[in-house]
Amino acid sequence: LRTGDPEVVYAAGKTPQQTVALLRALREQPGDRPALATRLSDETLAAVAAALPDARVDTVARCAALGDRPAPGGSVTVLSAGTSDEPVAAETAFVAAEYGCAVRRIRDVGVAGLHRLLAVLGDLHEADCLVVVAGMEGALPSVVGGLVGVPLIAVPTSVGYGSALGGLTAMLGMLNSCAPGITVCNIDNGFGAAVAAARIARRAPAAGAAEREVA
Amino acid sequence: LRTGDPEVVYAAGKTPQQTVALLRALREQPGDRPALATRLSDETLAAVAAALPDARVDTVARCAALGDRPAPGGSVTVLSAGTSDEPVAAETAFVAAEYGCAVRRIRDVGVAGLHRLLAVLGDLHEADCLVVVAGMEGALPSVVGGLVGVPLIAVPTSVGYGSALGGLTAMLGMLNSCAPGITVCNIDNGFGAAVAAARIARRAPAAGAAEREVA
Amino acid sequence: LRTGDPEVVYAAGKTPQQTVALLRALREQPGDRPALATRLSDETLAAVAAALPDARVDTVARCAALGDRPAPGGSVTVLSAGTSDEPVAAETAFVAAEYGCAVRRIRDVGVAGLHRLLAVLGDLHEADCLVVVAGMEGALPSVVGGLVGVPLIAVPTSVGYGSALGGLTAMLGMLNSCAPGITVCNIDNGFGAAVAAARIARRAPAAGAAEREVA
Amino acid sequence: LRTGDPEVVYAAGKTPQQTVALLRALREQPGDRPALATRLSDETLAAVAAALPDARVDTVARCAALGDRPAPGGSVTVLSAGTSDEPVAAETAFVAAEYGCAVRRIRDVGVAGLHRLLAVLGDLHEADCLVVVAGMEGALPSVVGGLVGVPLIAVPTSVGYGSALGGLTAMLGMLNSCAPGITVCNIDNGFGAAVAAARIARRAPAAGAAEREVA
Amino acid sequence: LRTGDPEVVYAAGKTPQQTVALLRALREQPGDRPALATRLSDETLAAVAAALPDARVDTVARCAALGDRPAPGGSVTVLSAGTSDEPVAAETAFVAAEYGCAVRRIRDVGVAGLHRLLAVLGDLHEADCLVVVAGMEGALPSVVGGLVGVPLIAVPTSVGYGSALGGLTAMLGMLNSCAPGITVCNIDNGFGAAVAAARIARRAPAAGAAEREVA
Amino acid sequence: LRTGDPEVVYAAGKTPQQTVALLRALREQPGDRPALATRLSDETLAAVAAALPDARVDTVARCAALGDRPAPGGSVTVLSAGTSDEPVAAETAFVAAEYGCAVRRIRDVGVAGLHRLLAVLGDLHEADCLVVVAGMEGALPSVVGGLVGVPLIAVPTSVGYGSALGGLTAMLGMLNSCAPGITVCNIDNGFGAAVAAARIARRAPAAGAAEREVA
Amino acid sequence: LRTGDPEVVYAAGKTPQQTVALLRALREQPGDRPALATRLSDETLAAVAAALPDARVDTVARCAALGDRPAPGGSVTVLSAGTSDEPVAAETAFVAAEYGCAVRRIRDVGVAGLHRLLAVLGDLHEADCLVVVAGMEGALPSVVGGLVGVPLIAVPTSVGYGSALGGLTAMLGMLNSCAPGITVCNIDNGFGAAVAAARIARRAPAAGAAEREVA
Amino acid sequence: LRTGDPEVVYAAGKTPQQTVALLRALREQPGDRPALATRLSDETLAAVAAALPDARVDTVARCAALGDRPAPGGSVTVLSAGTSDEPVAAETAFVAAEYGCAVRRIRDVGVAGLHRLLAVLGDLHEADCLVVVAGMEGALPSVVGGLVGVPLIAVPTSVGYGSALGGLTAMLGMLNSCAPGITVCNIDNGFGAAVAAARIARRAPAAGAAEREVA
Ligand SMILES: Nc1ncnc2c1ncn2[C@@H]1O[C@H](COP(=O)(O)O)[C@@H](O)[C@H]1O
Ligand SMILES: Nc1ncnc2c1ncn2[C@@H]1O[C@H](COP(=O)(O)O)[C@@H](O)[C@H]1O
Ligand SMILES: Nc1ncnc2c1ncn2[C@@H]1O[C@H](COP(=O)(O)O)[C@@H](O)[C@H]1O
Ligand SMILES: Nc1ncnc2c1ncn2[C@@H]1O[C@H](COP(=O)(O)O)[C@@H](O)[C@H]1O
Ligand SMILES: [Mg+2]
Ligand SMILES: [Mg+2]
Ligand SMILES: [Mg+2]
Ligand SMILES: [Mg+2]
Ligand SMILES: [Mg+2]
Ligand SMILES: [Mg+2]
Ligand SMILES: [Mg+2]
Ligand SMILES: [Mg+2]
Repeated sequence: LRTGDPEVVYAAGKTPQQTVALLRALREQPGDRPALATRLSDETLAAVAAALPDARVDTVARCAALGDRPAPGGSVTVLSAGTSDEPVAAETAFVAAEYGCAVRRIRDVGVAGLHRLLAVLGDLHEADCLVVVAGMEGALPSVVGGLVGVPLIAVPTSVGYGSALGGLTAMLGMLNSCAPGITVCNIDNGFGAAVAAARIARRAPAAGAAEREVA
Repeated sequence: LRTGDPEVVYAAGKTPQQTVALLRALREQPGDRPALATRLSDETLAAVAAALPDARVDTVARCAALGDRPAPGGSVTVLSAGTSDEPVAAETAFVAAEYGCAVRRIRDVGVAGLHRLLAVLGDLHEADCLVVVAGMEGALPSVVGGLVGVPLIAVPTSVGYGSALGGLTAMLGMLNSCAPGITVCNIDNGFGAAVAAARIARRAPAAGAAEREVA
Repeated sequence: LRTGDPEVVYAAGKTPQQTVALLRALREQPGDRPALATRLSDETLAAVAAALPDARVDTVARCAALGDRPAPGGSVTVLSAGTSDEPVAAETAFVAAEYGCAVRRIRDVGVAGLHRLLAVLGDLHEADCLVVVAGMEGALPSVVGGLVGVPLIAVPTSVGYGSALGGLTAMLGMLNSCAPGITVCNIDNGFGAAVAAARIARRAPAAGAAEREVA
Repeated sequence: LRTGDPEVVYAAGKTPQQTVALLRALREQPGDRPALATRLSDETLAAVAAALPDARVDTVARCAALGDRPAPGGSVTVLSAGTSDEPVAAETAFVAAEYGCAVRRIRDVGVAGLHRLLAVLGDLHEADCLVVVAGMEGALPSVVGGLVGVPLIAVPTSVGYGSALGGLTAMLGMLNSCAPGITVCNIDNGFGAAVAAARIARRAPAAGAAEREVA
Repeated sequence: LRTGDPEVVYAAGKTPQQTVALLRALREQPGDRPALATRLSDETLAAVAAALPDARVDTVARCAALGDRPAPGGSVTVLSAGTSDEPVAAETAFVAAEYGCAVRRIRDVGVAGLHRLLAVLGDLHEADCLVVVAGMEGALPSVVGGLVGVPLIAVPTSVGYGSALGGLTAMLGMLNSCAPGITVCNIDNGFGAAVAAARIARRAPAAGAAEREVA
Repeated sequence: LRTGDPEVVYAAGKTPQQTVALLRALREQPGDRPALATRLSDETLAAVAAALPDARVDTVARCAALGDRPAPGGSVTVLSAGTSDEPVAAETAFVAAEYGCAVRRIRDVGVAGLHRLLAVLGDLHEADCLVVVAGMEGALPSVVGGLVGVPLIAVPTSVGYGSALGGLTAMLGMLNSCAPGITVCNIDNGFGAAVAAARIARRAPAAGAAEREVA
Repeated sequence: LRTGDPEVVYAAGKTPQQTVALLRALREQPGDRPALATRLSDETLAAVAAALPDARVDTVARCAALGDRPAPGGSVTVLSAGTSDEPVAAETAFVAAEYGCAVRRIRDVGVAGLHRLLAVLGDLHEADCLVVVAGMEGALPSVVGGLVGVPLIAVPTSVGYGSALGGLTAMLGMLNSCAPGITVCNIDNGFGAAVAAARIARRAPAAGAAEREVA
Repeated sequence: LRTGDPEVVYAAGKTPQQTVALLRALREQPGDRPALATRLSDETLAAVAAALPDARVDTVARCAALGDRPAPGGSVTVLSAGTSDEPVAAETAFVAAEYGCAVRRIRDVGVAGLHRLLAVLGDLHEADCLVVVAGMEGALPSVVGGLVGVPLIAVPTSVGYGSALGGLTAMLGMLNSCAPGITVCNIDNGFGAAVAAARIARRAPAAGAAEREVA
């Protein structure tokens, strides 16, 4: 919907051959849009790396991309609560970068260790959009949303067990945050959060978009 | 969190006297921030109108506000699906305006009447942020999100009966939209959607924020 | 319940040997009714193809059939939203054909790509019954139901993750459609949708039932 | 969507004045389509009867209609399980008649009194479409669907208490019927069932549509 | 709690060695109570058969028993709806027999094939207790309960998919039966149903308990 | 289903006039079966007492009965956990008596006061059937079922708040009791428990049925 | 269970007369234990105050108590997140005081206003037990639990709307807190939290129990 | 949060190498805090035992610990209901010991065998904190909580099937216990219960902490 934004393949349930073929076909379409694939299995990650040597591949994010990224457009900061939330945060970061955002990562900022959060507060104020990734009770977006006025997208993860209900508990918590102005994506949906964040960030004036780095 | 943003009173469960007193106290605080109250009962709406003649009161939105609005900041368009979704859409529009946004309202754009939606497509592209309000199956954000690339916040409403589950069905539908980049608020949470939309819209370059009107 | 309608074997949880034997036995019953099996595993699909060379076997639909189809009876058009919904749509198409319907398939008509839907609108008006298959938020039946007055059966699929709840979100959305006159089947139940569609379509006057093709 | 079909007002949450005004306005539109309103309160039923003396009003169905019905189109038979299911069955019957169907009512055919069902079996085979209304465990459609091959729409009602879950138990039961070919509407949605039934019945050849009576 | 009733081992989650050892130990306790094990894996069924040659082993019921059964006590008839419900019905029958009941089995009496049920009605009246096993929508107990006044225990099974919710739909349906006097066990709990049925049946006067056979 | 058993009116949602008329009509039917009504409102209780002076009316149980009870048939003991469970226990007791059972009531036997339960253990062993009524966590049937081998029907009540979920928590607890042989009714369904208990108790040999008293 | 602990009346669903009579009776029992009642309606609060002038009555907590409190036993600090959580926090404070604890109240410490929490951190370390009361997403206990090692009981409240699910969202969040060592009570169960806190606090060495004040 | 308390690694989802490396790193940090890991797979248990010969490893609890335990602090007694609850009870016991508690284990105290519970009542009164572990209906904490006034933490387990809902039924039951003063942890969360119990027990005066033994 913006010139230069990638076409996306959802690789879950596709064979490595199908995903490679789809990425190749998208790249050969007229108009030169980049191609992006998410949810790649180990096998598909390897097949893409072997067959498409110029692809950008991230084994934690389980994503691959081909072709030139769109013009730079704003900055997105991705916070994650625990080490188990890494894959979702990495998917967000990878996709946001492919949509042209400068991406910063801040890891392991659990609610139960508030000092780490207070230490990065300055960085948070500078982002054009924040994506906050957390599982279990999903309280991190509430705490961040009480400290900064930057647009904030919360992504619940399926991390946890028992009454974590595969991420429903975190998702419900985020939807009921007492810090107003937080919006929420589906469980583990780093991809959707990144697309939303990119749409928000690219509307910001150019100032913040200097660097482009995936931390 | 931005100079000039209102302080907010959640009037549900408070007596008319309590709400009037809180609004008055907020207005008298140093720093001259405006004051906003949401979820007013009929009785409280009347009490505020009587006691605070300079208050802006909206009986559909069930909101009241006092004091100068913050500096203009971007444009927000609020779409609603059916007439029963009006109060939530009105709350969104009222609050976004109090946060300094130019607000446009588009009503009665149900999924089951697609032509009405296609007729306003041009308007949708011009907004800095869209808020789409729908109950029952909550399909409207998916349709809109497939047509425009503007940041889009979906608000499920409790409109419906039986397996509408008081808005849970609409909320789940929105969270699982096949149109990527949609983010979601709690059921009937027009207030939260407005705060999020205002944070997004005010980051946009000034162009779009010319007019300021609550339709 | 109509002369010539197939007897059905539900092959899930049965061994390849059991399914082959059941199909063979049904064919040998007096009265010459055809035999149909659904939910065949890869192994059972192969066993049926090997043991019963005159069987019609569809590896995407995971179905097999034996014996003459009943007299032609109306036309059914099956729409599916995404590539992951294919197996359910294929099951619907296969079964409807075995119940004597002329079947047309329309693929990949997601809500998020409305132009594809508008392009086939003429075809939709001509069917005696529509079956609309969609996962995730399941919004496609609402959009189609707002455009055509043909009997419409919605089939939710288990496609999606997190709060898609294994298809419950799509099913609830379809049951609460703001487009009236939609009825709904169980999640992934292409078989049941086909039987219902066949019962509806065969009551239509003969005009529409000229061709008989599984696209 | 068919010439002559009524425009519909959902009167729940509207004042008597609003509903009367809407019905009157619909009747005065060019094209002479009839007007239908559902979910009328006692007060609104009375207001409509007083203000619009030519309206057809049904106080059990809580419906009202104005203007000429569309051309006759097929027959619909409505079965209900218990006395508490009457209002939903009455809504179905009223609306189907306004959509041009010949309607037959069969009452009090509980699963727990099978003989009553067996006694009307002949009648059931003659309908162009059946609507089966039941609450509590919602088993009646399964039993009927095992006996006849007529298109069958099941409507769960909110009748019951405790783990009847406001109709969810009946709705889930109907969606999982072991009798194939049953499709399901939302809880208490007699209106939607009637629209679906009318669309099915009107496709049937004219034979069955001789009489037109609301039992 | 009655002299001669078996001690029971729940073999799920135990190794074959543990289950064999427990059965052996129970048999060697003073007092000569029989020993019963349920939920045996394939491996454990084989291990028990090899190590304890005088054990009664049932590979469909996944049960094993050792030692003399208690004194005969009443008759229990077990009805099952579909072929997938067989293992649960078999568990019920096996356990009831080990508690001293004369057990009769009636298979494949689905709601969708009422004639099969009407054919065995005479047999049903003669039992001291009925156990009715069904999955999917679980309607069979309602139908049976409307026809006979014998104590009736309903056992929901996890047979089904999608909104069958692993047996919850059947369980809820049974708990809300419109036929009064039905009581319900946990999903797939053939064991618990058998113990309850045995307690009921053994209180009946001796007449009915002539034969003792597991069909 | 047994000569002399009452016909039953479910008075919820019926006017006092309707209930009085139904009871009178049932009494005047040939065959002289007694008539029973449950779930009477305060107003209906008064109307029945006034209009039918020979009716047996219980204002706690909210039941009324007319005509001769059936021949005595076994004894039922009803235990209740707390004072808020009284109405459900009273409904059970009233209905069981009308079905011909000798009924004994034991009140206020909470799990949290085990000594009261141990004090009545002897009485429990003598009943032909136990009905155990409890809300909140519904643990009482597990404790009783571990102590006696008498047939035991558990009735969850809607007593409790928050995560008691209107009785679902108690119902689920009872269905998962670690004491085998417990069967369960719907929430607050004292009527259904009584019918089941009467069917069980009347099969017992005559010994236990000497007295007939509602405590 | 400790000499001097109160006997408790749960006044919900009891008449004012019943509650007054029960409190009076408890006070007159031998052994001089105090008497406590919770969940009093406005009417019952007034009736108790009038009839029992020496009663301690709290209209926010909706509690009343009579007789000497038990010997002092440790200190309990009750934190609440928002003004709507006051009644639950007040119930906790009232009951803990009646169980002999020195009680401190800290109000309005929302997650979205972290500075207020950091300001009272010193006080929190001094308590023998903390009770943290919060609704909506219920994140406050996670934040507090990450800062102090004092025993911490979390009480979810029913404050919120839509997907707050009457307190279930807060309750689930608290049960899945990433701060280990938090335990949870039922929704709105200030009484249960107070009893648990009192049992914990009274085991602490006497030091902390100097003052006794309900803030 | 107390000097000497362990740092904890959550080994689920980590490779054996990662867990070994993390434990080693924690041990080498300045300050000499012990290191604890929970949720070790078989492979990781073996890897830790091989690589870190001074580690304390428990293959039932699936835990490992390194370094000196903190100073002794109070006594914790862990009760478990059935043999399937052992792993959770063992995790509780292991972790509590590593937090410095004297731990006593009482096994197999099911609700359905009350005599075993009554036999250990004396022991229960002596503990500084009780942890009660139970699955299925989770009734054991209610029974224990009615007998003793010691602080009691209930841990639901995922033991059970069908409507046990993976432990939700037990968790809900415990949260609604009619015995006041019980607090609850997440399903299978032996770790969290142990941390909470250690915080409670260590506040008790030294008397009870004489022995230190993991039974
Ligand atoms: N990780 C993801 N989660 C949700 N949706 C996705 C994801 N990745 C891609 N998509 C969507 O899936 C669509 C492509 O699906 P498909 O045609 O099946 O490959 C894209 O247009 C995206 O909107
Ligand atoms: N895919 C399917 N989904 C639901 N029901 C099915 C399906 N295929 C077959 N059935 C039903 O299963 C019955 C046969 O079951 P069985 O006797 O176990 O083979 C048929 O009569 C159908 O009604
Ligand atoms: N308290 C009750 N709970 C559930 N079902 C009841 C109850 N009382 C009566 N019934 C059932 O309701 C039927 C009568 O319903 P109705 O014809 O509406 O009066 C009876 O045959 C009973 O099976
Ligand atoms: N069994 C467990 N259940 C829940 N949380 C745990 C468990 N074991 C450790 N944790 C928590 O997980 C944190 C460490 O997570 P990680 O950094 O991923 O190893 C610790 O601080 C604990 O609070
Ligand atoms: Mg987290
Ligand atoms: Mg809508
Ligand atoms: Mg879809
Ligand atoms: Mg019914
Ligand atoms: Mg079945
Ligand atoms: Mg109770
Ligand atoms: Mg809160
Ligand atoms: Mg247990």
